[in-house]
Amino acid sequence: MKNFTETQLLDQLQTLTAEISDLDEEAMSKIQARLDSLTKPQGSLGQLEHIAKKLGGIQRTSTPKILKKAVLLMAGDHGVVEEGVSAFPQEVTPQMAYNILSGGAGINVLARQAKADVFLTDVGVAFPLEGDFIHKRVANGTKNMTKGPAMTRQEALQALLVGAEVAAEKIHEGYNLLATGELGIGNTTPSSAIVALFTGSSIEEVVGRGTGIDDAGLIKKRRAIEKAFEVNQPDRTDALDVLSKVGGLEIAAIAGSILQAAASRVPIVIDGFISTAGALIAAKLAPKSTAYMIPSHGSVEIGHRRALTELGLEPVLHLNLRLGEGTGAVLTFHLVEAALLILEEMATFADAGVSEQLT
Amino acid sequence: MKNFTETQLLDQLQTLTAEISDLDEEAMSKIQARLDSLTKPQGSLGQLEHIAKKLGGIQRTSTPKILKKAVLLMAGDHGVVEEGVSAFPQEVTPQMAYNILSGGAGINVLARQAKADVFLTDVGVAFPLEGDFIHKRVANGTKNMTKGPAMTRQEALQALLVGAEVAAEKIHEGYNLLATGELGIGNTTPSSAIVALFTGSSIEEVVGRGTGIDDAGLIKKRRAIEKAFEVNQPDRTDALDVLSKVGGLEIAAIAGSILQAAASRVPIVIDGFISTAGALIAAKLAPKSTAYMIPSHGSVEIGHRRALTELGLEPVLHLNLRLGEGTGAVLTFHLVEAALLILEEMATFADAGVSEQLT
Repeated sequence: MKNFTETQLLDQLQTLTAEISDLDEEAMSKIQARLDSLTKPQGSLGQLEHIAKKLGGIQRTSTPKILKKAVLLMAGDHGVVEEGVSAFPQEVTPQMAYNILSGGAGINVLARQAKADVFLTDVGVAFPLEGDFIHKRVANGTKNMTKGPAMTRQEALQALLVGAEVAAEKIHEGYNLLATGELGIGNTTPSSAIVALFTGSSIEEVVGRGTGIDDAGLIKKRRAIEKAFEVNQPDRTDALDVLSKVGGLEIAAIAGSILQAAASRVPIVIDGFISTAGALIAAKLAPKSTAYMIPSHGSVEIGHRRALTELGLEPVLHLNLRLGEGTGAVLTFHLVEAALLILEEMATFADAGVSEQLT
Repeated sequence: MKNFTETQLLDQLQTLTAEISDLDEEAMSKIQARLDSLTKPQGSLGQLEHIAKKLGGIQRTSTPKILKKAVLLMAGDHGVVEEGVSAFPQEVTPQMAYNILSGGAGINVLARQAKADVFLTDVGVAFPLEGDFIHKRVANGTKNMTKGPAMTRQEALQALLVGAEVAAEKIHEGYNLLATGELGIGNTTPSSAIVALFTGSSIEEVVGRGTGIDDAGLIKKRRAIEKAFEVNQPDRTDALDVLSKVGGLEIAAIAGSILQAAASRVPIVIDGFISTAGALIAAKLAPKSTAYMIPSHGSVEIGHRRALTELGLEPVLHLNLRLGEGTGAVLTFHLVEAALLILEEMATFADAGVSEQLT
């Protein structure tokens, strides 16, 4: 992908976003009719019913099925950690990548429970990374965004298309329920910057403590974003400008994987704050992609709620998670499967001889 | 149980509540230490960490285990349906009981997914009910609470002890994770009455649309509760007085099953609005029982949040459910199991060679 010019990369992205269409209303109506015939007060299974309908609309069938499940983890590092915005040193990104490879991280435990496979792509880790990862490194981390753009526009496009490529490959292998996820020390800082710009919020309203910085760290983090805005003057009407100036390589890849999922008519569960920043980028590049997103948890990060509201998504899990790695998204797989089981297995009023509502 | 005098029943209840003790602080400290050694920022798995600790405190071990899972469904009818408070006729209670017996209800689908068993106890259905239920009927439904007490104090005690007996039997059979659940047309009305009294809320603040009544029905429902308060003058400092005058037989049984779970040191997941009304009764009879309760979902019913706050519980699922039957509780089993898997399977910082937090 490194051999393509910026124009060629932009063409590829536009081809991808042009493939994203609306959900199938007919399939959704059929599912609604089936849900209303089941032995329960109409609408009483709330979000489970919405998820069932959405899956039918995405798969263009009144009998949607889940075959194989995958968590697409994107890893990247951030030059802005020089500003003291994170509680952990940058060495932790590759250390955690190896921990995931050996199956010991939180996401591995929860993915095993959900019978989902975990795939980790190196989109832009700063240190060497060897082993059974998907090796697609665009750069050795971003540059410090307080001193200039985090990456070039070409790198941003490359990272977006890396995400799309990985998603396409997994969809080709039969995975038809995806989750986003990430690792990257310092990545709540670019995520906060993206969320502030796209929700029209102040920096104070969207900057949280990430993995656990103290008050002094919080001030540094806010100051770093302010400085990045001053230095780079990101244009909020241009998602690629925002992404390249104050974003991250793994955030770009998350956005790309969402766009590919939508183009391939595959539902994708959006994890926490960083993934939601990626989802905002995807939504700005292709507004129809939001219909393919399934919300998961409401994170502790204060900007998360605003970002989800901007996307029209309501979180279903409230667990005060702030780990990332796709942990909230993979926990949501159980609810997605529950929604389909309800559709497939519940008795209708006619089957069960139960009186329908009289009033 | 029908042969016992009120005094004898009260003695049995007091014996039960006297067995409820505090959680094991030592086990909880050990679990906290283990959680803090795992490869994640401290506390970043939020409620999952709280659940893991709670389970250890309940089971008095730093390595809690879940063996068998059960949903204890309590069924009862309500004389107050004469007042037009429900969207469904009373005949639906036995119809839904048979639907559950044949495996076609929402709870059956979700319990199969969770690998949990469903047990339905007839505590007080108004119509005949035959088949493979747990037959422990105390009365053929409650009386119309707008005209006098819903039941006698003796019946309330009997129904409480039915719930305790069923829970004790299942715990004896090896079930060590329980969920509450219920069915009973009209049962959001007594639940609203209980929640209003114990949270000090107005009737307007806690009365919702149940399975789906219209505006006229909502007015009837509020008026019925007002009238029941006027006629019966329930004493909010006496849980048995509240339960017998404006409660329900299945609500009493839910409270009893919670008390038995707590006495037997078994965690019990609290379903929606009606179950939470039962949990309030349990908490008033034995305040220490709240430590054994695991919250599940935040229901659409407007009084639910107030009731949970009174119990110090935060719901983890936000699915806009209003079906009852234990559906929200059984969906939460997945999260309880996730919490234990995290405790058991995640790598420590030492195992994984990951740098610990520096700041």
